[in-house]
Amino acid sequence: MRIAFLFYDDMTTLDAIGPWEVLARLPGAEAVAASRNGGAIRTDTGLVFDKTAKFSDLPTADVLVVPGTGNFAQLADPAAIDWARTLHATTKWTTSVCTGAMILGAAGILQGKRATTHWAAAAALAKHGATYAPERVVIEGKVITAAGVSSGIDMALTLSARLVDEQTARALQLGIEYDPQPPFDSGNAANADDALKAKALAVLAGGRR
Amino acid sequence: MRIAFLFYDDMTTLDAIGPWEVLARLPGAEAVAASRNGGAIRTDTGLVFDKTAKFSDLPTADVLVVPGTGNFAQLADPAAIDWARTLHATTKWTTSVCTGAMILGAAGILQGKRATTHWAAAAALAKHGATYAPERVVIEGKVITAAGVSSGIDMALTLSARLVDEQTARALQLGIEYDPQPPFDSGNAANADDALKAKALAVLAGGRR
Repeated sequence: MRIAFLFYDDMTTLDAIGPWEVLARLPGAEAVAASRNGGAIRTDTGLVFDKTAKFSDLPTADVLVVPGTGNFAQLADPAAIDWARTLHATTKWTTSVCTGAMILGAAGILQGKRATTHWAAAAALAKHGATYAPERVVIEGKVITAAGVSSGIDMALTLSARLVDEQTARALQLGIEYDPQPPFDSGNAANADDALKAKALAVLAGGRR
Repeated sequence: MRIAFLFYDDMTTLDAIGPWEVLARLPGAEAVAASRNGGAIRTDTGLVFDKTAKFSDLPTADVLVVPGTGNFAQLADPAAIDWARTLHATTKWTTSVCTGAMILGAAGILQGKRATTHWAAAAALAKHGATYAPERVVIEGKVITAAGVSSGIDMALTLSARLVDEQTARALQLGIEYDPQPPFDSGNAANADDALKAKALAVLAGGRR
């Protein structure tokens, strides 16, 4: 079972690594990170991943995972969009985390569907023919979209139950000791005031190098 | 404010990236990944990080973050232990995620303290003079230990409130949309039966390459 991750410069690291940590550990899984040119990419907080495959080396996969970024130019990269469209033709599951949904959207994959993304990017889904659903994980046929950054962990555990079985997904959740205890109640934009949203966006923008 | 991450071959990716995603975005933070020889390291699920600094290039830091691994030989690496001890002498905060606690322990940092780690490694804390506390995040003076893998996100948000202020930590939690909705109730070992624990350990071992 090949699980392909779309890596690119300025991607948000946790968008990719939440699902990677879960899905790469599935029995029988071969998780592969691929990027436009292969080799090294640099995330939006300055980490460098090397030894990624090239898109052209991976024409098919059972599962595609597309992480997001605050750099919207990357979400419009024709090579990434084409690769997502190509893989989606034969995937069992096509998934995104955060603004990775915009790559799926640009590939035509979200047309007419409910979908989720980072709360701050919700309005951008409409231009891809999708309807924003303010949910953590949205499943429409074989397409799964997840909300912002950390939501990929929830998405990957949900997907694991479908790819293998519920007991394996439960074991993975225990393996990564995913019994979250957020110190604050501030993670949901529906409950955030404008000042906190503005500060969140400033912090996100400031963290980018 | 320099935040140093101890990277090494076979480390568990999410152990490091959960805190990295939060702490690297703190206003004024300079997050740096360092490894014994600098350059490339390969995580326990096959991802390669490149361009890490050398331990010797970073003799001090305000915060140290030590991720874990299931490869106990790495947790006994003298170079890693020495570097942790050296940095701890002048850090404001010294932290670990998962079995990263064993590196702190081997450096003498947990002697006489309550500490947490991955549930499956709890017994190993005793040989470092620490008492296992089955909690998500344990704060003892300037030392913070976090439970398994995913707990580093909770730890980093807790730490962010102390490093900067609570409003910034709340904004970061909103920025990464950390409103977790685990699909199962299986993340806490205290509620897991032996069969699920055995399966979790098998899945963890199987995901290692």
